[in-house]
Amino acid sequence: MPFVRLSLRRGKSRDYLRAVSDAVHQALVDAFRIPPADRFQAIHQHDPEELVFDRDYMGGPRSDDFLLVCVTGGKPRDAETKQAFYRRLAGLLAESPGLRPEDLMVIVQTTDIADWSFSNGIAAPLAEAKP
Amino acid sequence: MPFVRLSLRRGKSRDYLRAVSDAVHQALVDAFRIPPADRFQAIHQHDPEELVFDRDYMGGPRSDDFLLVCVTGGKPRDAETKQAFYRRLAGLLAESPGLRPEDLMVIVQTTDIADWSFSNGIAAPLAEAKP
Amino acid sequence: MPFVRLSLRRGKSRDYLRAVSDAVHQALVDAFRIPPADRFQAIHQHDPEELVFDRDYMGGPRSDDFLLVCVTGGKPRDAETKQAFYRRLAGLLAESPGLRPEDLMVIVQTTDIADWSFSNGIAAPLAEAKP
Repeated sequence: MPFVRLSLRRGKSRDYLRAVSDAVHQALVDAFRIPPADRFQAIHQHDPEELVFDRDYMGGPRSDDFLLVCVTGGKPRDAETKQAFYRRLAGLLAESPGLRPEDLMVIVQTTDIADWSFSNGIAAPLAEAKP
Repeated sequence: MPFVRLSLRRGKSRDYLRAVSDAVHQALVDAFRIPPADRFQAIHQHDPEELVFDRDYMGGPRSDDFLLVCVTGGKPRDAETKQAFYRRLAGLLAESPGLRPEDLMVIVQTTDIADWSFSNGIAAPLAEAKP
Repeated sequence: MPFVRLSLRRGKSRDYLRAVSDAVHQALVDAFRIPPADRFQAIHQHDPEELVFDRDYMGGPRSDDFLLVCVTGGKPRDAETKQAFYRRLAGLLAESPGLRPEDLMVIVQTTDIADWSFSNGIAAPLAEAKP
C-alpha cells in the first residue's frame, strides 16, 4: 500500500508518463516487495515556474526532465532496503523512459497500517492480519 | 487543524467537488471531533494518465470515480478513531455525491501541533494551550 | 533537503510566484540553516473550488490570496526553530510579494535523512556523513 506522488514539468507524452509510472511501480515491487497489484500513483505536471529545483545541489546536473518521486509507505523499511529502492528506481528509469539518474529525487515517508483504508475501512484490519 | 489533499479524475462538476469537500469535512468533525470551522482542503484533478490505481487490489472494483483522500492531522488518533473516520467518510460520500465505497482510498498522516502555523506563528503556541 | 509543496489560487503572475518561492526558500535558509543551494519546491495552483479554507479559523481573516506552505524536512527541528521559521516566513512574504500574514498557513513534516535520495541513491549515505 504505498502511494506515490510524482512531480515533473508539463509536456511529456502519455507514453513517457506511463514509462515513469511503470518504473516506479516495478522498483517498489522489486525493492519493497509489495504485491504487483498494489499500485496507486498521482502524477502532477507543472509549468516551469511551478517546479523549482537547484540544478547542482547534491548531485546533478539536473535538466528540465527533473522528476520528484514522493513515496508514502504503509510500513517501515530499513535504510538498506530504501537504498536498494533508490538504486533500482534509478536503473529502471534510465532504461525507460531514459531518465538520467541525475534528474531523479526521491523522498520516502512512512505511516502505520492503521493509517490506510480502502473502501469503508474493512481493508485496514484485514491488512493488519497479513504482515 | 487537519489538512486534506484530495485527488480524483478531472471533469466533475463544482457541485460534485463541493459535495466531496463537505463529506470529508463532516466526517472529520464527527470522527476526529475537530471544530466545524477547522476546514482546509486542496483538491487535485488529474487527467486519466495522471491518476494510476489498481481496479481490484484490496477491495474494489474501482471505477473512474476513484477518490484518494490524504489527511494530515495535527495530533495522534488511535486505530479505533481512524476506523470510525473511514466508515463515516464512506457513508457520507455514498449519500452525496453518491460515491461508491469501493472507489474510496484514505491515508492519514500525523504531525505534532508545533508543526502547524497560522498567520505569523502565534497560533501554534495558542493551540498548544488548548488540548 | 527540505522539499516544499505550495498551494494557492490560480492566476498569480510569474513574478508573484517567484517572490513566494524566494521568500519560502530564504526563510528556510535563515531559520532551518539549510544550504542556499538546497532548493526544491512544487507549486500547485488551484481553481477557487479546489482550494477550500476557512476565512477565520485560528487567525485570519483570510483572503483569496491564501497560501498553504507544506514543508517536508530532512531532520527534526525543535519547536523554537519552527516558530522562528514561521515568523521569518511571514515577515519575508509580507515584504514580497506583499502577502498578509493572515493569509499564510504552514505545515512542517519531518523524515529521516535515509528517506531522501538524489540521483541513484549515493547522495543519501554521503549526507549521513555530514551532520
